[in-house]
Amino acid sequence: MALNNRRILIVGGLAAGPSAAAKAKRVNPNADVVIFEATDTVSYAICEAPYAISGIIDDEKKLVIFSPEKLEEEKGIKVKTLHLVEQILPNDHKIVVRDFRSHKLVEFDYDKLILATGATPRRLMVEGENGRNVFHLKLREDTQNILTYLKTESPKQAVIIGGGFVGLEMTEAFRARGLDVTLLDQVSHPLEGFEQETRERVLRELLNNDVNFVPNTTIEALQQDNSGRVRHVITNRGSFECDIVILSLDVEPNVGLARDAKIRIGSAGAIIIDERQQTNIDSIYAAGDCCEVKNIVTNKPIYIPLATVASRTAWVAGENAAGGRAIFKGAIRTAAVKVFGLEVAQIGLGSEEARVSAFDVMSETVTSTSKVGIMPESEKIVIKLVIDRRTQRLLGANLFGGLGTVLRANTLSVAIQHKMTIDDISRFDLIYAPPFAPLWDPILIAVNQAKKKIGH
Amino acid sequence: MALNNRRILIVGGLAAGPSAAAKAKRVNPNADVVIFEATDTVSYAICEAPYAISGIIDDEKKLVIFSPEKLEEEKGIKVKTLHLVEQILPNDHKIVVRDFRSHKLVEFDYDKLILATGATPRRLMVEGENGRNVFHLKLREDTQNILTYLKTESPKQAVIIGGGFVGLEMTEAFRARGLDVTLLDQVSHPLEGFEQETRERVLRELLNNDVNFVPNTTIEALQQDNSGRVRHVITNRGSFECDIVILSLDVEPNVGLARDAKIRIGSAGAIIIDERQQTNIDSIYAAGDCCEVKNIVTNKPIYIPLATVASRTAWVAGENAAGGRAIFKGAIRTAAVKVFGLEVAQIGLGSEEARVSAFDVMSETVTSTSKVGIMPESEKIVIKLVIDRRTQRLLGANLFGGLGTVLRANTLSVAIQHKMTIDDISRFDLIYAPPFAPLWDPILIAVNQAKKKIGH
Repeated sequence: MALNNRRILIVGGLAAGPSAAAKAKRVNPNADVVIFEATDTVSYAICEAPYAISGIIDDEKKLVIFSPEKLEEEKGIKVKTLHLVEQILPNDHKIVVRDFRSHKLVEFDYDKLILATGATPRRLMVEGENGRNVFHLKLREDTQNILTYLKTESPKQAVIIGGGFVGLEMTEAFRARGLDVTLLDQVSHPLEGFEQETRERVLRELLNNDVNFVPNTTIEALQQDNSGRVRHVITNRGSFECDIVILSLDVEPNVGLARDAKIRIGSAGAIIIDERQQTNIDSIYAAGDCCEVKNIVTNKPIYIPLATVASRTAWVAGENAAGGRAIFKGAIRTAAVKVFGLEVAQIGLGSEEARVSAFDVMSETVTSTSKVGIMPESEKIVIKLVIDRRTQRLLGANLFGGLGTVLRANTLSVAIQHKMTIDDISRFDLIYAPPFAPLWDPILIAVNQAKKKIGH
Repeated sequence: MALNNRRILIVGGLAAGPSAAAKAKRVNPNADVVIFEATDTVSYAICEAPYAISGIIDDEKKLVIFSPEKLEEEKGIKVKTLHLVEQILPNDHKIVVRDFRSHKLVEFDYDKLILATGATPRRLMVEGENGRNVFHLKLREDTQNILTYLKTESPKQAVIIGGGFVGLEMTEAFRARGLDVTLLDQVSHPLEGFEQETRERVLRELLNNDVNFVPNTTIEALQQDNSGRVRHVITNRGSFECDIVILSLDVEPNVGLARDAKIRIGSAGAIIIDERQQTNIDSIYAAGDCCEVKNIVTNKPIYIPLATVASRTAWVAGENAAGGRAIFKGAIRTAAVKVFGLEVAQIGLGSEEARVSAFDVMSETVTSTSKVGIMPESEKIVIKLVIDRRTQRLLGANLFGGLGTVLRANTLSVAIQHKMTIDDISRFDLIYAPPFAPLWDPILIAVNQAKKKIGH
């Protein structure tokens, strides 16, 4: 195989696929790089969709980062939309592809193959789920369909099922558009996996914004009217009227294609890769939401379907497929969401997760202010630190509060990633200036408090 | 000397003094801790003074963090205001103090002594500098005098001399109150010591806000009228009319008392301390703006008269004076200032400073956006990285731009403090969410650009 004109095929064009393709082309401009995408859209900013739906972003078209034509013209990447990859033949270095336009099956040879098959929103598996006013939010057509439905049918009442990131962002988007929102969650508070303090505060923020949050809900059916629209969501907690339903449960990695090709799948159901993003099969890489990654805090595999991880693993897969030698050292999981006026972040391990990982967990929750207290714009920030008592390493943190909360999480995330102790963090030389931070930044106040508790 | 009831005397009550006293009391509640302060005020938030003068903080009294009475009641710290320490007698473990009320000299014994004598704004040393409308901004009486003058004399035109932090903050404060402001600087741009790109952008921000910035100015005289008010500032660049003058030159450490006691002074003119904040004389510590600190980036002493360093060194001095064993590992120098709509930060070494310190300096300046570009609130952020080409360590950075610029500096400051390379930084697992940051945070975009330049 000549390095220079190797053929790199990429399965999936939403996020990780185009990133991997672009990186491969930069590393090896002579490579023949082709993306196969089952829909008609590539390179779509789906994470911004709630903001296009709320109207903050005024035109949904802005979410299309690259059209297929632009990817080809500007980056030299060939794009085959409406092409579904149905089979991998690893021994022959071939993929079998369904062309939705011609309806024919076609084979393509590869030197290197990158799987960027992504993830699919989990379904409820109840009656009525196929209603024409029931939407997920994963593809461009979802965004477009929701916008069209809002415009043409002017729904007044929304039921959102699932209180994770997408559910919360869609709640805010619909409230911004004046809809009544009922948010149904299968657990007691929104943001499952976050710390209890955070979840209680988020719940309060929802209630303050007139969201009807219903906890501990099991969905029994989506009851449709004659037109095929769901009008009632039937649950163990009663029936909820609605004009529109959003399903925002978690996602499941798309691994059918990989599994059929005998590519190894991990315990979380995602593709196992090595630090070069290579699967167990020679010349086949994987990146993005279809594969697991190493958790730097625990050194164990974890499934983190976040865009940051997707783009970073995509770069590594793209570079290596093109002949480079890139390494992905793992992630700590950093996530943030805005819930109306509240900034919320979780980084690294949660306290329960840390306990399960056999750390000797202690935690400390400290409330301070974003700026010098006497500055009128100063807002409350709460930081909960999750610490390993034995090594005094910071394992994770939750932060919630006003403006400036989430960017502070980044500073702590460096500490987590580099396995620093709370004593290390207490020595951070952080900025103080009245418009930006108090003399002792909330981060320092929190770790100093934790040090006292440990008995430093 | 019994540990439990040792007597700790502290010279200076503005910032480092009360911090050291409070820490000493926490570590050793039975210690007898006394602060001597020459003015009538202790524990004053002088850094917030420009915001009290602008009116953002509505009452100057809020800047008094602790009254002497409150320090005594709440912290058990004795405070002697209007007491000027005139001499240290190290062999006798005594200080000689002038009581301004009785005008008498009194001696006090100490077991441990902490010097927190601070710094004094540099004077111009020109004729007319004593004018009744000429102010520094260092003590509570300065804040009060400026506020009184604004109220009683309604000045229309201000001349501010010195384009550092205080000069810029006072410029904004006076503009907020509707005064015309002429800012005179002895160099070509404001913020001497910052990177040229930053200084040009700050200058543009000043001009956009109708500030008359005059570069390369040497002050020749402050011309007073018959009432003792300065009406013209005479310079090599012409004469400038004024109703009020602010002198915001740099500060000089107050070391006369220490020098007379044969305490060693460093090349920058500040007290030399070890990592326990102890001077060369047994039982005498120093903290805050009167002493130098170790620069973590160069491992050499540096003079950093910033409140963050003052409070951290004060804690270490206080703890050690009380019998503890605290260590101050040094600082990297992190500073930020808001200039009208612009956030500005400098952390670690500047590129010129790095060259002088014999690093093989390369720099990279990258412009990106604070949020996903299509979010309407997204603002420009410029990051200039100062890198050691040989080790690829980040030595310093300048950041300027919209909301969220300064808090990002903190994340980079951890990298500088922990001697990370740009490759380390490129692996940071930073948050992405549309309301907070783009998929690749400006920090990652900047270091990835630098990596390309190096040829990674």
